[in-house]
Amino acid sequence: MLKNDLLLRAAKGLEVERAPVWLMRQAGRVLPEYRATRSKAKNFIEFVKNPELACEVTIQPVDILNVDAAIIFSDILVIPEAMGLPYQMIESKGPWFEHTVKNKNDIDNLIIADAEKLNYVIKAIQLTKKELDNRVPLIGFAGAPWTIFAYMIEGSGSKTFSKAKQFLYTQPELSHQLLEKITLSTINYLKAQVSAGADIVQLFDSWAGVLSEKMYYEFSLNYISKICDALSPLVPVTVFAKDAHYATQKISETSCHSIGLDWTMNPETARKFSSNKTLQGNADPCLLYAEESKIIEETQIMLRAFGKNRYICNLGHGLYPDIDKQKVKLFVDVVKEFTW
Amino acid sequence: MLKNDLLLRAAKGLEVERAPVWLMRQAGRVLPEYRATRSKAKNFIEFVKNPELACEVTIQPVDILNVDAAIIFSDILVIPEAMGLPYQMIESKGPWFEHTVKNKNDIDNLIIADAEKLNYVIKAIQLTKKELDNRVPLIGFAGAPWTIFAYMIEGSGSKTFSKAKQFLYTQPELSHQLLEKITLSTINYLKAQVSAGADIVQLFDSWAGVLSEKMYYEFSLNYISKICDALSPLVPVTVFAKDAHYATQKISETSCHSIGLDWTMNPETARKFSSNKTLQGNADPCLLYAEESKIIEETQIMLRAFGKNRYICNLGHGLYPDIDKQKVKLFVDVVKEFTW
Repeated sequence: MLKNDLLLRAAKGLEVERAPVWLMRQAGRVLPEYRATRSKAKNFIEFVKNPELACEVTIQPVDILNVDAAIIFSDILVIPEAMGLPYQMIESKGPWFEHTVKNKNDIDNLIIADAEKLNYVIKAIQLTKKELDNRVPLIGFAGAPWTIFAYMIEGSGSKTFSKAKQFLYTQPELSHQLLEKITLSTINYLKAQVSAGADIVQLFDSWAGVLSEKMYYEFSLNYISKICDALSPLVPVTVFAKDAHYATQKISETSCHSIGLDWTMNPETARKFSSNKTLQGNADPCLLYAEESKIIEETQIMLRAFGKNRYICNLGHGLYPDIDKQKVKLFVDVVKEFTW
Repeated sequence: MLKNDLLLRAAKGLEVERAPVWLMRQAGRVLPEYRATRSKAKNFIEFVKNPELACEVTIQPVDILNVDAAIIFSDILVIPEAMGLPYQMIESKGPWFEHTVKNKNDIDNLIIADAEKLNYVIKAIQLTKKELDNRVPLIGFAGAPWTIFAYMIEGSGSKTFSKAKQFLYTQPELSHQLLEKITLSTINYLKAQVSAGADIVQLFDSWAGVLSEKMYYEFSLNYISKICDALSPLVPVTVFAKDAHYATQKISETSCHSIGLDWTMNPETARKFSSNKTLQGNADPCLLYAEESKIIEETQIMLRAFGKNRYICNLGHGLYPDIDKQKVKLFVDVVKEFTW
């Protein structure tokens, strides 16, 4: 039995004493303790593949920041790798794929990944669950199929993802074939995460915002919806589609439990379009650069706007590495001490 | 008298026979003719500062693509340069500033630019007006103050503009001082463009989308509104705030004439929030990678969604350099031949 199950109750729409709080990228460079652990691995990929190190950094924010949940340390690009498309993480540049998907043959050569290929994540989850000792829930996650597709075609990050979008526009059938393979791999992967102990899962659609509304429904939300249907009977599912401001209502029509919002979204408007779901977010990460009184004031405004129930407090995007750890702690404390 | 004044009539909300069409970045690398002219200049900055070359590439799309307007070839970063902060354009990287704004002293050292400092743009406009011989209107433009501010603090492009946002959060008063100086410079600049012959002006707020709604109103729209008030008695003003999906209604409350929309915006929703303004946009630039039948189909759907009046057909962002010129022509032709 979890000692603190606020996150799960909030996600399911049950009564809570206060809103739970965690932060995207809480297991990250914002913590000096993370950087110390990170330095034990030769490179980022080795780091991700080491269950002991992954466990260590996953638990750090629970100990140090006192957040209401841990999120397993990993990377969304483990899925392309497990499907047959390895990548490197290049310092201060981001991910880079030597081979990208260009045609039908490339898609046919990819496998539908099973959990065995991602055993290092599964081991990390098992280890973390043991070490957490039921203090807080453990969040599992995966990239949404469109975001994974975008990297597999583009081969790296991009301002426009115009190559990936060109593929959608010129090869819609092949696009669906690839998205289907990614979706099946992701379902296998998330189910294994749940079997290993993940209490809730989140889908990150980081590049949702480069698609038009119509393209988003066809090439992204369709597949997110399938993953929600496969996972939501097992654990709560959160969908975070960054910059897909137009999609709140359609996301609320999937079987997900909660919807992540970036900081450009208005809490009241989002509530109107998704009254049946829990909302998660959405402070501007840059707010944590501000002085203390400003952080307190803006966080309290946000808490009031969302209300106590059906709400998970978070940022609207991941923590930036140069944010002061004390400011992050302050944010967490403000949420925990807020009088509802 | 302009032979084709469709754009001006559409911007002012007057009756038109059909919607006018032009494309952001139509004077750009998508045209082989542009690349030929570009090769005559030593570098990008020299190119921008050469009125004859700027005139040449400004007129090319009118001759070649048959668009309903020319937009003066220039760069939004001529304003920081005129204020005392020069930049370089680094091939395949983008703009880079050797000196950035860090404190009050840096802001005090910047001048409010007058048109004299930007004489090369004014000359380019005069030359272009003469060469265009009243065939179509000439669009002048400037960056919106927040976007210019973002580059002046950040010193280059950025995925998050977290340094610029940190400045807003930690130095709100200094931020307003700098934004005020940029605004006054921009008003001087745009008024001079109009005196030189610009028939309509557009403000590009390229980095609107990194701000939250509240921050956007305080640090961006306030200043856009001042520029609209100064220019709209002279010529129609278009405000294009990319990714500021939440701001359509507030933008419609300024004295601008038309509102540019990126491709994530729903035409019907935008109409609802800005019934008194002309809308401009908003095809996904990547649509022009598709095969001809798809381009025709999607462009016609868009035309029907916006309707004939109070509408300027365009993309939702600039043309990408690797788009086939023939596809761009097709897009223009579809708009011109559409039966309303």
